[in-house]
Amino acid sequence: MSSTGEIEALIDLMARLPGLGPRSARRAVLHLIRKRALLLTPLADAMQTVAATARECLNCGNVGTSDICDICTSEKRATGELCVVEDVADLWAMERSGVFKGRYHVLGGTLSALDSVGPEELRIPRLIDRIASEQISEVILALNATVEGQTTAHYIADQLEGRVRLTTLAQGVPIGGELDYLDDGTISAALRARKEL
Amino acid sequence: MSSTGEIEALIDLMARLPGLGPRSARRAVLHLIRKRALLLTPLADAMQTVAATARECLNCGNVGTSDICDICTSEKRATGELCVVEDVADLWAMERSGVFKGRYHVLGGTLSALDSVGPEELRIPRLIDRIASEQISEVILALNATVEGQTTAHYIADQLEGRVRLTTLAQGVPIGGELDYLDDGTISAALRARKEL
Repeated sequence: MSSTGEIEALIDLMARLPGLGPRSARRAVLHLIRKRALLLTPLADAMQTVAATARECLNCGNVGTSDICDICTSEKRATGELCVVEDVADLWAMERSGVFKGRYHVLGGTLSALDSVGPEELRIPRLIDRIASEQISEVILALNATVEGQTTAHYIADQLEGRVRLTTLAQGVPIGGELDYLDDGTISAALRARKEL
Repeated sequence: MSSTGEIEALIDLMARLPGLGPRSARRAVLHLIRKRALLLTPLADAMQTVAATARECLNCGNVGTSDICDICTSEKRATGELCVVEDVADLWAMERSGVFKGRYHVLGGTLSALDSVGPEELRIPRLIDRIASEQISEVILALNATVEGQTTAHYIADQLEGRVRLTTLAQGVPIGGELDYLDDGTISAALRARKEL
């Protein structure tokens, strides 16, 4: 490498981001150096700010810049519905759809005996507390349709049985999906859950 | 979006990096927030440093942290060979191969009448100066094998004709390349330049 230490160090750090490898990190750093005033300096500043302010919401586990996140403090979202997701990324995905108006509970992963992730690590006791304290009437289990996600959903369903209305996301053909490209599991699920026209 | 302004601003900036879109930028930012001490803070610091120190070498156009880059100042690399490349990324790629021991000249692009990029914009006058002042005996034209790269190489060859030995990178089958996956142009070039065993 011909680039000097500082640039090399930046490339190494960039290459540790998910989705970037050594080649794309080099390309990104050259782009940053070319767009120093427009991109590199603002990006460095934005990172400093986020490093100093970002924190986990003590109530739901969302990422924000205060102890309790904007969704938890918003009076508009006290609808009595609580959507349980694995990850902050899933919460953001739900928010982009713009359909859900209630609050969230971020587990921060799935149950895993192998990695010794038990209910305590996943904020499940906190979820049970919230159902009483926030007068929750419906818990929507929006966990990923993977084995781990579904195992965790079953465990939570067992814990909450009888205390609250429990629902889960519908499974079926995704919008714009072509049958020929779908896996067998999705097609069987869509067929089993078929609806009257 | 449920994330607060500061995090949103960081995602928007990250999404402007080449190779990252909105989705991968969100994933990268969540990863950065999770690895705050290990990754986010060091990355912000590295960016500040590079923003403050990175500059173009006044001699060859390479990116470094001093007015004249490490390659240009190294006495070991005064071999009389000068490798002309389009871009700093190409210089880095040449350096990774570790074979070339001389110095570089980075054009910063290719000639383009449409974008009004002429010889002055590409440091071609500076290249001609260097051939005399650095006692260059051979100029290796390592431009990309694209129409623009080859047009620029032809122009430079015309300018330097008779003053210095001119060479270009060999064209042929890449190492590990399978004939079935190569384009016709590469196969014809490799056939025309065939060698005795």
